[in-house]
Amino acid sequence: MAPHPVVEYTSEASWAMIEDKLSHYAKETLAKVVKFLEDEILPAAKVAHAQLPDDPVKRWQTVIPVVTELKAKAKKLGLWNLFLSKAHYPEFGVPLTNLEYGVIAEVLGHAGPIGPESMNCSAPDTGNMEVLARYGSPEQQKKWLIPLLNGEIRSAFSMTEKHVASSDAKNIRTSIRQEGNEIVINGHKWWISGAGDPRTKLHLVLGKSDPNNKNEYNQQSIVIVPADAPGVKIIRPMKVFGYDDAPEGHCEIIYDNVRVPLSNLVLGWGKGFEIIQGRLGPGRIHHCMRSIGAAQASLNLMLQRVTDPTRKTFGKYLYEHGTVVADIAKSRADIEGARLLVLSAALQIDKYKAKGAMKEIGIAKFVVPSMALTVIDRAMQSFGAAGLSQDTELAARWAGLRTLRLADGPDAVHIQQVGQRELKRAPGLVKKAQELKRKEEAVFAKYGLKAHL
Amino acid sequence: MAPHPVVEYTSEASWAMIEDKLSHYAKETLAKVVKFLEDEILPAAKVAHAQLPDDPVKRWQTVIPVVTELKAKAKKLGLWNLFLSKAHYPEFGVPLTNLEYGVIAEVLGHAGPIGPESMNCSAPDTGNMEVLARYGSPEQQKKWLIPLLNGEIRSAFSMTEKHVASSDAKNIRTSIRQEGNEIVINGHKWWISGAGDPRTKLHLVLGKSDPNNKNEYNQQSIVIVPADAPGVKIIRPMKVFGYDDAPEGHCEIIYDNVRVPLSNLVLGWGKGFEIIQGRLGPGRIHHCMRSIGAAQASLNLMLQRVTDPTRKTFGKYLYEHGTVVADIAKSRADIEGARLLVLSAALQIDKYKAKGAMKEIGIAKFVVPSMALTVIDRAMQSFGAAGLSQDTELAARWAGLRTLRLADGPDAVHIQQVGQRELKRAPGLVKKAQELKRKEEAVFAKYGLKAHL
Amino acid sequence: MAPHPVVEYTSEASWAMIEDKLSHYAKETLAKVVKFLEDEILPAAKVAHAQLPDDPVKRWQTVIPVVTELKAKAKKLGLWNLFLSKAHYPEFGVPLTNLEYGVIAEVLGHAGPIGPESMNCSAPDTGNMEVLARYGSPEQQKKWLIPLLNGEIRSAFSMTEKHVASSDAKNIRTSIRQEGNEIVINGHKWWISGAGDPRTKLHLVLGKSDPNNKNEYNQQSIVIVPADAPGVKIIRPMKVFGYDDAPEGHCEIIYDNVRVPLSNLVLGWGKGFEIIQGRLGPGRIHHCMRSIGAAQASLNLMLQRVTDPTRKTFGKYLYEHGTVVADIAKSRADIEGARLLVLSAALQIDKYKAKGAMKEIGIAKFVVPSMALTVIDRAMQSFGAAGLSQDTELAARWAGLRTLRLADGPDAVHIQQVGQRELKRAPGLVKKAQELKRKEEAVFAKYGLKAHL
Amino acid sequence: MAPHPVVEYTSEASWAMIEDKLSHYAKETLAKVVKFLEDEILPAAKVAHAQLPDDPVKRWQTVIPVVTELKAKAKKLGLWNLFLSKAHYPEFGVPLTNLEYGVIAEVLGHAGPIGPESMNCSAPDTGNMEVLARYGSPEQQKKWLIPLLNGEIRSAFSMTEKHVASSDAKNIRTSIRQEGNEIVINGHKWWISGAGDPRTKLHLVLGKSDPNNKNEYNQQSIVIVPADAPGVKIIRPMKVFGYDDAPEGHCEIIYDNVRVPLSNLVLGWGKGFEIIQGRLGPGRIHHCMRSIGAAQASLNLMLQRVTDPTRKTFGKYLYEHGTVVADIAKSRADIEGARLLVLSAALQIDKYKAKGAMKEIGIAKFVVPSMALTVIDRAMQSFGAAGLSQDTELAARWAGLRTLRLADGPDAVHIQQVGQRELKRAPGLVKKAQELKRKEEAVFAKYGLKAHL
Repeated sequence: MAPHPVVEYTSEASWAMIEDKLSHYAKETLAKVVKFLEDEILPAAKVAHAQLPDDPVKRWQTVIPVVTELKAKAKKLGLWNLFLSKAHYPEFGVPLTNLEYGVIAEVLGHAGPIGPESMNCSAPDTGNMEVLARYGSPEQQKKWLIPLLNGEIRSAFSMTEKHVASSDAKNIRTSIRQEGNEIVINGHKWWISGAGDPRTKLHLVLGKSDPNNKNEYNQQSIVIVPADAPGVKIIRPMKVFGYDDAPEGHCEIIYDNVRVPLSNLVLGWGKGFEIIQGRLGPGRIHHCMRSIGAAQASLNLMLQRVTDPTRKTFGKYLYEHGTVVADIAKSRADIEGARLLVLSAALQIDKYKAKGAMKEIGIAKFVVPSMALTVIDRAMQSFGAAGLSQDTELAARWAGLRTLRLADGPDAVHIQQVGQRELKRAPGLVKKAQELKRKEEAVFAKYGLKAHL
Repeated sequence: MAPHPVVEYTSEASWAMIEDKLSHYAKETLAKVVKFLEDEILPAAKVAHAQLPDDPVKRWQTVIPVVTELKAKAKKLGLWNLFLSKAHYPEFGVPLTNLEYGVIAEVLGHAGPIGPESMNCSAPDTGNMEVLARYGSPEQQKKWLIPLLNGEIRSAFSMTEKHVASSDAKNIRTSIRQEGNEIVINGHKWWISGAGDPRTKLHLVLGKSDPNNKNEYNQQSIVIVPADAPGVKIIRPMKVFGYDDAPEGHCEIIYDNVRVPLSNLVLGWGKGFEIIQGRLGPGRIHHCMRSIGAAQASLNLMLQRVTDPTRKTFGKYLYEHGTVVADIAKSRADIEGARLLVLSAALQIDKYKAKGAMKEIGIAKFVVPSMALTVIDRAMQSFGAAGLSQDTELAARWAGLRTLRLADGPDAVHIQQVGQRELKRAPGLVKKAQELKRKEEAVFAKYGLKAHL
Repeated sequence: MAPHPVVEYTSEASWAMIEDKLSHYAKETLAKVVKFLEDEILPAAKVAHAQLPDDPVKRWQTVIPVVTELKAKAKKLGLWNLFLSKAHYPEFGVPLTNLEYGVIAEVLGHAGPIGPESMNCSAPDTGNMEVLARYGSPEQQKKWLIPLLNGEIRSAFSMTEKHVASSDAKNIRTSIRQEGNEIVINGHKWWISGAGDPRTKLHLVLGKSDPNNKNEYNQQSIVIVPADAPGVKIIRPMKVFGYDDAPEGHCEIIYDNVRVPLSNLVLGWGKGFEIIQGRLGPGRIHHCMRSIGAAQASLNLMLQRVTDPTRKTFGKYLYEHGTVVADIAKSRADIEGARLLVLSAALQIDKYKAKGAMKEIGIAKFVVPSMALTVIDRAMQSFGAAGLSQDTELAARWAGLRTLRLADGPDAVHIQQVGQRELKRAPGLVKKAQELKRKEEAVFAKYGLKAHL
Repeated sequence: MAPHPVVEYTSEASWAMIEDKLSHYAKETLAKVVKFLEDEILPAAKVAHAQLPDDPVKRWQTVIPVVTELKAKAKKLGLWNLFLSKAHYPEFGVPLTNLEYGVIAEVLGHAGPIGPESMNCSAPDTGNMEVLARYGSPEQQKKWLIPLLNGEIRSAFSMTEKHVASSDAKNIRTSIRQEGNEIVINGHKWWISGAGDPRTKLHLVLGKSDPNNKNEYNQQSIVIVPADAPGVKIIRPMKVFGYDDAPEGHCEIIYDNVRVPLSNLVLGWGKGFEIIQGRLGPGRIHHCMRSIGAAQASLNLMLQRVTDPTRKTFGKYLYEHGTVVADIAKSRADIEGARLLVLSAALQIDKYKAKGAMKEIGIAKFVVPSMALTVIDRAMQSFGAAGLSQDTELAARWAGLRTLRLADGPDAVHIQQVGQRELKRAPGLVKKAQELKRKEEAVFAKYGLKAHL
């Protein structure tokens, strides 16, 4: 029997570990995703780039035609909103586990950002649809969620602030207050991804509605702000290295006395923290799996480059020089180990929800982006200067992944949290060591020896 | 339902990945192994050390009483020869897969060398029993295999030579030639583990029987040499970082005109290479899993140390200083990823035999020992000078694991082989890239754009 | 006595090592450079950026006003062409050693590219002026060198080719042939830095003039090509991580039947290799010292960030979290060691010329860029997303330095060359070991012992 | 002119940096040290090992004959007590700076412990002689210092305690109290180097004489305890990995009501901290320079090994495989950078005393041992199993150096201190940044632009 087509994108060894955990539907869907990637997404990538104007104004007003076409095709094929799990969103979702969607995310990682977007699975829309599906009022769902699910509009999640260290969300300063039937928003945000896109119609804005509440986790609320509401001022796109990531962008925004109806409050006053907590876990796994796909795709490029006869120097293939083969072996091993780590974290989420899998998610979060950056860096090096330029995907991929060492909290935060969770194992180990000591003394005694130390 | 007791020794996330692949027998056996480890092996470790004389002669003549006792207990409990798979050795083996025995090996890695020895699962006996079970004549099996399986005797595998680079086995110089009904062996070996043990009764000696054979893989043969045959001269034990590893030891041996009956030839003339090839794969997985157990045990010690109130400095627990928490988080992540790598390699062996899992085995072989050394080194550092001494297991564990970066070929060999195997993927990728280019051009054409580059 | 102002930019420990090796003129000049950096260059950096249009066409046609102003000021102060050593270019140069100019380069590394440009010390003009000063005919010097020395025009060095692995310069394919009194050039180059600048008036083009010459180091020649010669077609700027580095740029260029007079040949037919060899050594030291300055400037930013009270999270300064202090200590140590390495390499050049200092230059070349990238990456991480954006110098600096791991040959080439040079020490060591053995045997004999082994 | 013979042991590049800072006497002495190393010390190393009995009791009662002979020769040649600087100890010392002695220490690092011992420059005697020379009473000097200076006796420094975290010296618990004309000492120490040597006649014991003193730096005192005083109980030697380092050893000792005359108090009551502070700085530099010598010697061995024709595998020299050449290049670069770091730290001590060079000493302390361990590890790997055994110096050297990551405080302590010192630069940088901002605004204004951000 021919191996499942996804094996070429993941690895035999990983596939063997998880194959029996995947549903028939998941396997069928995976096969379709692979085919769609190869037949449609990858061939469209450079066209998408060519359809984006260089002009510094027009590139923010453009809906890329080939992406629109891809979306229509994907929708028709049922490759749509696959990120949304039926388990958690029975009304809207598809019957895929986190583990199953994780493998899809890895496959999509072989493409650039148009991969997820084609299938309506791109951040920040994914998280926003989850929020609206779980916490939105029927009215909010009708107005915002349905068009998002249909891929007709896009959205932004407006949390990070310019003037505070917002990786500690308690530092958030944006003010959200009620005035009669309206909510008034004032604040200065930045790095708001997607806010530059002409299709983006709403921002979910996190701010402080009750800054003096004694419970500092009840001070925040989330409000839906229409992108075209008066007072929403997009200052500029933030660049990542030299990339502006148009048309989505990562914008600096001032909310200057923006007024929205009271019905735009999500879930209720003081529920902001609760909402963002629920938003994080699985999204991290998706990012990690896409990163692994990106690393794998980069290693694939490297393999082609170092065996390219036109790139021989001093009479030898590149792979015959120095440490190239070793770098390849290490990259393979790095990817392999990281993939299994993330898959096992996804499985833990399926078993215990994100809350029960925080250690595994945390490990994935700090291990994978660094691993992928290393693998891509080795690939770039094998391409010479071309590897740093617009002529391969490598440099843009590297820059995109570099943000993941900061997004949702810098590495250091996740490392500390994982370490602290490990430390909680200490008391149990001490108790066990004491028991062992007692048994040990009995054996010493039995042999008439004296245990010293 | 209480979690399986092995979860404490491996991790929840790893266990979830493999649980459904383990037989009922395997799970029961694993539970027994954990109990035996905690009740018998670990409490005996320091006694075993105390029962070994300091005297530089007597320590090589000693059979450690508590180990003998452990062996009797393990045999009674059926925790015996678990390494020997029924799948490959139907007559002698147990119904455990490589994956299943891998988990057992990890648990045993929490103990020192007495762990595997107690259960008659210690190298080099394991590999030798496999050789004799697969290739031994009925007479050889009766005389040598049965007592080995019974744990009555021990054995050595005599391959590495002092004067040549024997990681390339074709360099072997020991001469094996027939004289009438006898075989005469002359050679200079070293690092022959187990040869110092008073219980060791046979050496499997690899040498050249047909040095001019055009097929350089048919030049070698393996012969059984009784340890007390005239001409077997044990020169000295080789030390590893000051450790002599008595009573087993790693000996330098001269075979000086040693004569054995023709019936001591294993499998046939020129079959040496074939035999050693079959001997390697699964053994590497066992080593790797034990290394992971050793790393985990070291991290467990570190967790206890850094939370020990008597070790506070400058008013703080050790874990409150510097990079300790980060080191712990990294160790946890390192172990977790490596464990999944090795388990997936074991599963590949179960599916495709060792020959079909060479890439996965190779990755495990170069990743795991370095990982374990790093984790143990962090733990040593947390213990201060005590961590380098005889007062914790850490230093001896580190030294033992350091040899694994060389045993069965240095890291570099495995890295090169994995890299070369990866390179074989290049032509397929090139072909796929060409197909992609064609599809891409079609999309460019469709939109009236010109693909340059 | 107040310490020399440069101590703030290098380190006390490094300064103490070299102070007595610097001339009075060098020390005075260094003090002036520091003052010019602080009073003029650094305050102009953001203005220079603001004066560069966003428009994708106009940014390549712009001469940045504030840079022109800086150049005038520097020239007046005598901070001009300091890279050009009187020792090698008595007619044009200044009395600075490589060591002395190295320290100046480090100081300039605290600024972006406008630093060196202000003082007419920026690549590729520096190397080109050296070539013309050493090898140019009087006519060539009058026409091209003098305006370059005056900072009136700029230049490009056209070597790297798109379709071959040109890190092995023997692979170069551009054709240079004589037709009557003219030279005809045909070739496809890329990554030609400076070629985008409207002030650039000449390209030094390396090509093959005698491809069948048996001595493959005599096949190449270098020709001066006026930037506006018919047939010089600038295809596009190559980007580095999204940066186009306008207005200089790194251009893809086709030379399509470009014709220049015979007098534009530099030095003579077949002298191309000789010329590029002489061009490399000291330039690498300048790059390395600027990289160290860039690393130091990044660490300085990090120190400010992690002590910034507005960036506290969870009630603590950034430096109180996790591994920040350790990262700072390592960065400091990394910079310190690298700086001494490069200074000592510069001193070797001063003593033995570049040819006699190849090992030291090679070490600097592969150690420093990686070191600087690591230090800058740590600094970026401390700034959160801002560190990756246009709001600090860090991301652009990182991208610029990333190219240094490839420019003038990838790291791997330099690592191999240094390693090969080290290997040449082996025979001498073997001889010495044999002598030692003889002496050792005598001592053994004296004490009546037998040396075995 | 022939280069100075030490250039072969350090490097040309390093030598060029410091040569002009060395006195004529220092250069002459260095040449003599090199000759003594090559003619006497290195040839005696294996004999010294052979003269040490295996017997676990006798090895602690042995004075190794060849070492005694070496000492006599060195004394005659004036290569004696070179560590003791005339600058600080005018009565006893030699006219060498820290920088100068640093180079000698590097040369000695090519030998094992017999190197320094031959020239009466081995720890802990060096530090103890410094203490007695600086703080000892005339009576103490006559009784203990003179025989130490003459190399007639040896000594121990008894500080580390078993039951507390003594890297924070304030945790010390050993009690030192006056009873009439006597001092009574009670405490439990370990890792007391040299205490096993039959020639060791005194311990300098640090303990608490005034545990309730409000100034916690005045609670400690140091007392001279004769090694044969009643109540001095040597419990056992601590091993480092498997090495016991006989005959010196690192002993666990109980001081059980040991009584010494009041005149054995050093310097005065409560002066313990002051004494140990003065003892540390330069000693760390010596350790570091010896470590660099050890690393260099290991790289030298590696170079011989990888070019050894008898070690070819698969038809190639070891250096033709994989990453060997790269490892060699990196080792060379690592050593080179570290050497310059330590030399520059030594120079800072010469200029500002240890107290003014704490940052540089701290950097050396955490950088060098790790660097040397890495270099030695690469060398070990090139030797295969032999590299881990008693047949090369590598394993013992590695184990010895591993202790340096803990001795005088673990790496983490030094890293934190260096980082904290770096942080002190932040306020100055902030001030400078503010000045820059003002100047920058002026430039913006001049060009009619608005500085935002």
